[in-house]
Amino acid sequence: MTGTLYGLGIGPGDPELITLKALRIIEKTPIIAYPAPDVGESLARAIAAPHIPPGKTEINMRMPMIPGQFPAHNVYDRYADEISFHLRKNLDVTVLCEGDPFLYGSFMYLFIRLSNKFPTCVVPGVSSLGASAAAIGVPLVSRNETLSIVPGPLDEIELIDRINSSQAVAVMKVGRHFKKVCRVINRLGLNQYAHYVEHASMSNQITLNLDQVDANKVPYFSMILIRRPKEGHDL
Amino acid sequence: MTGTLYGLGIGPGDPELITLKALRIIEKTPIIAYPAPDVGESLARAIAAPHIPPGKTEINMRMPMIPGQFPAHNVYDRYADEISFHLRKNLDVTVLCEGDPFLYGSFMYLFIRLSNKFPTCVVPGVSSLGASAAAIGVPLVSRNETLSIVPGPLDEIELIDRINSSQAVAVMKVGRHFKKVCRVINRLGLNQYAHYVEHASMSNQITLNLDQVDANKVPYFSMILIRRPKEGHDL
Repeated sequence: MTGTLYGLGIGPGDPELITLKALRIIEKTPIIAYPAPDVGESLARAIAAPHIPPGKTEINMRMPMIPGQFPAHNVYDRYADEISFHLRKNLDVTVLCEGDPFLYGSFMYLFIRLSNKFPTCVVPGVSSLGASAAAIGVPLVSRNETLSIVPGPLDEIELIDRINSSQAVAVMKVGRHFKKVCRVINRLGLNQYAHYVEHASMSNQITLNLDQVDANKVPYFSMILIRRPKEGHDL
Repeated sequence: MTGTLYGLGIGPGDPELITLKALRIIEKTPIIAYPAPDVGESLARAIAAPHIPPGKTEINMRMPMIPGQFPAHNVYDRYADEISFHLRKNLDVTVLCEGDPFLYGSFMYLFIRLSNKFPTCVVPGVSSLGASAAAIGVPLVSRNETLSIVPGPLDEIELIDRINSSQAVAVMKVGRHFKKVCRVINRLGLNQYAHYVEHASMSNQITLNLDQVDANKVPYFSMILIRRPKEGHDL
């Protein structure tokens, strides 16, 4: 008998965009884990805060955040061990994930370490993709259109290729790559079809045209959506 | 003074994957609209059913469903008129949308007709993308990987090109295009990395390998996820 590991999508930032299923699992699980930066507050913990009852054991998974680098594997090894310790004692463990666990979520590093050893349940969440489109008021894709999800850190040549080949593109994790992404969008003549959003669905949500953005103040949680007009019909 | 139009993502099928925000808006809105096929039940209405209190005025938006065709513009014109009638009387109207309203949702046809005339609020929902990945147990994208979302009805040449050029691909609306999509996946040698799911998160959810699927019984709400292995690391 072991506990169950839950990977819980808790949505893009607005605490009201959590699902009933995530709420139920948070309430019944004795151990709650969440990623956090080296110093400071966990965003995932902050999103779920209104829904976490007192009396839980919490695992604050501190991840060194170095721009351009990902946390080392031994960081995930260490927290996988800590979570295993509870699961082996037949205690359920919930890992809170911003957005959706399997869309650029760090939960997947725990999933590959633990899901072959313990019962594991992944609960999908509202992703920042839908939240960003809703914030901007731009329908992303319809009918037989394609959508490409592209991380901002890609190099310029690959960005040009990928942005040029889809009807709709979401450039995620823009952050310090804003100027590069803008150069690509300008070069492709797509400036008028591009929309910027930061902190979608959060209380500090901002939506701007690209030329209104201060390139030096673009946070990691920012996105540029590009939607080309289609000939022949209005969507 | 007019009412507000709400486009509400109600998630991929499991009624528990609805958000607190969607629940609150359903409860306070007197008029609830939803798309439905020509004959039979509305899936969106069925998903939200446990959460719709009695006493609402309901607008059953019947859409002729002809394989390979989309509803004609005059169908949306007609329901936009019906919804406008209530909004002008200062009544709020909620439109229920499966998944996320701006990801292949038919709500966008009402949005382009009404959002310039009435206050409009779009509430993102859990999409079938995250639900399908969770069902299969396959993390979709991590780090600097790209994800392409591709509709099954695309022609074979375009499918080959798009599936071949991304680390991860979600082929949506597979339905009667299953054999064609499989030919493409086989040709690209990706069979072992492809996963099939139908009715993700619903009580009749099924996940299969491609060679287990009966090609003649693939429903519209089905998806194939493809995730190539990456050289050099395990995710």
